[in-house]
Amino acid sequence: MHAYPTLEERFARISSIEDAIGILQWDAETMMPEGAADSRSDQLATLKGLAHEMLTAHDTGDLLDQADQDSGHLDDWQRANLREMRRIYLHAAAVPADLVEASSRAVSRAELVWREARQNGDFALLLPHLSQVLTLQRQIGQAKGEALGLSSYDALLDSYDPGLRQAAIDPLFAELGAELPALIQEAQEHQKGRPAILPLDGPFPVDDQRRIGEHLMKAVGFDFNRGRLDVSLHPFCGGSTRDVRITTRYSEANFMSALMGVLHETGHALYEQGRPEAWRRQPVGLARGMSLHESQSLLIEMQACRSQEFVTYLAPLVRETFQGEGSAWSPENLHQILTTVEPGFIRVDADEITYPAHILVRYKLEKALIAGDLQIQDLPSAFNDKVKRLLGLTVPDDSLGCLQDIHWPGGAWGYFPTYTLGAMTAAQLFRAASQADADILPGLAKGDFAPLRTWLRANVHSKGSLLTTDQLLIAATGQPLTAEAFRAHLRERYLGH
Amino acid sequence: MHAYPTLEERFARISSIEDAIGILQWDAETMMPEGAADSRSDQLATLKGLAHEMLTAHDTGDLLDQADQDSGHLDDWQRANLREMRRIYLHAAAVPADLVEASSRAVSRAELVWREARQNGDFALLLPHLSQVLTLQRQIGQAKGEALGLSSYDALLDSYDPGLRQAAIDPLFAELGAELPALIQEAQEHQKGRPAILPLDGPFPVDDQRRIGEHLMKAVGFDFNRGRLDVSLHPFCGGSTRDVRITTRYSEANFMSALMGVLHETGHALYEQGRPEAWRRQPVGLARGMSLHESQSLLIEMQACRSQEFVTYLAPLVRETFQGEGSAWSPENLHQILTTVEPGFIRVDADEITYPAHILVRYKLEKALIAGDLQIQDLPSAFNDKVKRLLGLTVPDDSLGCLQDIHWPGGAWGYFPTYTLGAMTAAQLFRAASQADADILPGLAKGDFAPLRTWLRANVHSKGSLLTTDQLLIAATGQPLTAEAFRAHLRERYLGH
Repeated sequence: MHAYPTLEERFARISSIEDAIGILQWDAETMMPEGAADSRSDQLATLKGLAHEMLTAHDTGDLLDQADQDSGHLDDWQRANLREMRRIYLHAAAVPADLVEASSRAVSRAELVWREARQNGDFALLLPHLSQVLTLQRQIGQAKGEALGLSSYDALLDSYDPGLRQAAIDPLFAELGAELPALIQEAQEHQKGRPAILPLDGPFPVDDQRRIGEHLMKAVGFDFNRGRLDVSLHPFCGGSTRDVRITTRYSEANFMSALMGVLHETGHALYEQGRPEAWRRQPVGLARGMSLHESQSLLIEMQACRSQEFVTYLAPLVRETFQGEGSAWSPENLHQILTTVEPGFIRVDADEITYPAHILVRYKLEKALIAGDLQIQDLPSAFNDKVKRLLGLTVPDDSLGCLQDIHWPGGAWGYFPTYTLGAMTAAQLFRAASQADADILPGLAKGDFAPLRTWLRANVHSKGSLLTTDQLLIAATGQPLTAEAFRAHLRERYLGH
Repeated sequence: MHAYPTLEERFARISSIEDAIGILQWDAETMMPEGAADSRSDQLATLKGLAHEMLTAHDTGDLLDQADQDSGHLDDWQRANLREMRRIYLHAAAVPADLVEASSRAVSRAELVWREARQNGDFALLLPHLSQVLTLQRQIGQAKGEALGLSSYDALLDSYDPGLRQAAIDPLFAELGAELPALIQEAQEHQKGRPAILPLDGPFPVDDQRRIGEHLMKAVGFDFNRGRLDVSLHPFCGGSTRDVRITTRYSEANFMSALMGVLHETGHALYEQGRPEAWRRQPVGLARGMSLHESQSLLIEMQACRSQEFVTYLAPLVRETFQGEGSAWSPENLHQILTTVEPGFIRVDADEITYPAHILVRYKLEKALIAGDLQIQDLPSAFNDKVKRLLGLTVPDDSLGCLQDIHWPGGAWGYFPTYTLGAMTAAQLFRAASQADADILPGLAKGDFAPLRTWLRANVHSKGSLLTTDQLLIAATGQPLTAEAFRAHLRERYLGH
């Protein structure tokens, strides 16, 4: 009978260590002087090690078993919490300490070499390090897979997105992949029929950009009493659940990129700030997974803030802020800027419709690499083949190809698919929301996100990890994830039907 | 043979937790949104608890004993490190966990009530809470005293300043106390003979104040690659040893207060940044104690930066920065502003010569309270008596009397004397430095702190906790701490002889 409360206390402490790590990582990207990097590495390694030790303490497994035996005394919330505790424990305990350490070291080295390799487009330089990271990721996948009764790749997927399986992704991505090349081409054709885009002339002062960013964050629902906006080289949403630190990066030449970035991170932040206060520090209070997290950022950025409705609110606001003049600042022109389709080499610069092609390339390749069906030295040519097939582009240089992302040298295998699953989920949720509340779209046209936020709070944020992703989606939208809403959204926005 | 390396590893991890705590505390005062306070409290309590658990782990005592037995194999540095490990361990292990927790809770409550009590000058409101804190401090002092073979008050002193004893303080403070009332009066008389002070007319833009503050920090030797300057309600020097975060508070009406505050904290920061990089994460690499730490801030602020020499450099700099005009900006007038004597009720606003009187009042009272020679309900009248005797002032209200400082409700008993010991130490070190290197004073007149910094690095910073405070002072100045250099300094600066 004491096992469950003991576990709650242990996980609460672990959660506070994770929160501290989140703030220290934010600080490292935003505030920390460069010379403190070594000291910060020591701090993070120590805290991560302590959290891991507490999680995998010799009695955690027994406590989980005892709590399971006593689970008749637990309510639904506690049972869900216990389920999440076990999942987290299994992932952590499955991997022997020396494998964790070897992988961490290999990743640190590979990330360092990757920066140089990417700069020079030199895959051969990265190859031995990437090969080492892959070998260790395969071992981790196998170890986790054995503990969880999953294939290696499924076990890696499950690390980022509980319950996500290759068998669920394959048909969704196959459906999308079959349609994408034609869709991209049609969208470009369709685009040609529209008036030429008028450029917005800067410079756009950073202070004005920050002011309008904060204004829109507030409109969307960001709570500045429990979060901040700052600047970092790579924008992110971090900090801790009750202290959400988002970042952006300003360019005086282009305000739209930072602004859309801020709105994207604000979507993530809403999910962090919107989970129940009383569930804080417990696993059931955590975000459900990376697909759902990405769905919240893409729902705000792509579904809501690139909609015709919102742009009618945005256009006069930015025109006034930056003292813009002329028809370049019309809602129609702004909307065209925000929905331009242009196949390119770089994933992070991709538009909404070509982005999934980048993900499909990476998903297929990492699956094959983990399964041993592709050799790591063959990655560049396999990568370039797939880019040619899906995007119609000839990669001139590995820095614009398989060297562009940090994920693989960084040891984040099984992460890529969550971006596009997030986009699909966003479309499905946004459609359900708009159908459930007729005030949502008209609200966006007035900069009023309250109806949308209310729906998201009720149907997504407030659930934490109480439900599985499937259960959550069925409750919110009537069905598990399909590609249908996303495909319809793309056709409507980019083909006009 | 393995005991010592095991201890080094354990203390290194503890040090990284402490570093993390330092950054999180800095963040709480400078960056954190208000709504995150509860979450931050959880983080800090968890990390402090973990550091304490690691320090007092069941085998730490045995490891220390084994390492002592093997100490023939250790070099001097390792032996000093081991000595510091044991001191830290004894302090931590002496106090039972429930006493630590009870004290921490009583302090939290008392600090909260104190804010209201101070606002309203209502000692009765604070009394039961302060009484509780005192009771627990006496128990802590007794527990530590038994473990360390010290009286209760000495044990509390030793927490802040290793090796500091009442028997060493009493004669120093008696000597000072006997002289102070007359000295203060003479200084005021002497001041009357000087030309009237011309006020500096603001406003002084905050950006300019920050710029000149950063300029002077660099001149003094602050390494911005391993530290920052920010804003907080109460200025402090925090962060971690290799990532020193100092803060200030600006007023557009008065730039001098923030600037001198910045220079004060820069003195602390030099000590943090100046200890040997290779000693990082080990107890022997820690600062020697609060008296020495305060000596470093006061040496920079009071000895160096309020000297005639430095003011000849400062005057044209501030005049140019703030576009000042007229003789108010002359070095002579600025120096008078920086050395004005004016007895007042508030310790933190006190000038260099009346400040020690505030400390003597508090030292005598906290000694008596800990010893049981004074009852807590009699504190206000005892406080006011002593203020009358030493400063010649009649306290009109406890908010200007015994309620003004957070130290006692905050559980920092045994801390007050280190301020004035720091001032004495600063005078003794500065005199020795100036005698050892004739370039130091002329350097200050050119804003060149390199000679002074070189001497401090060699004689103070680089020593860490290798030596005791006495050993360090004897090596640096030829004698242990006496009141003589400080008394001579006050007479010279404030009486002109």
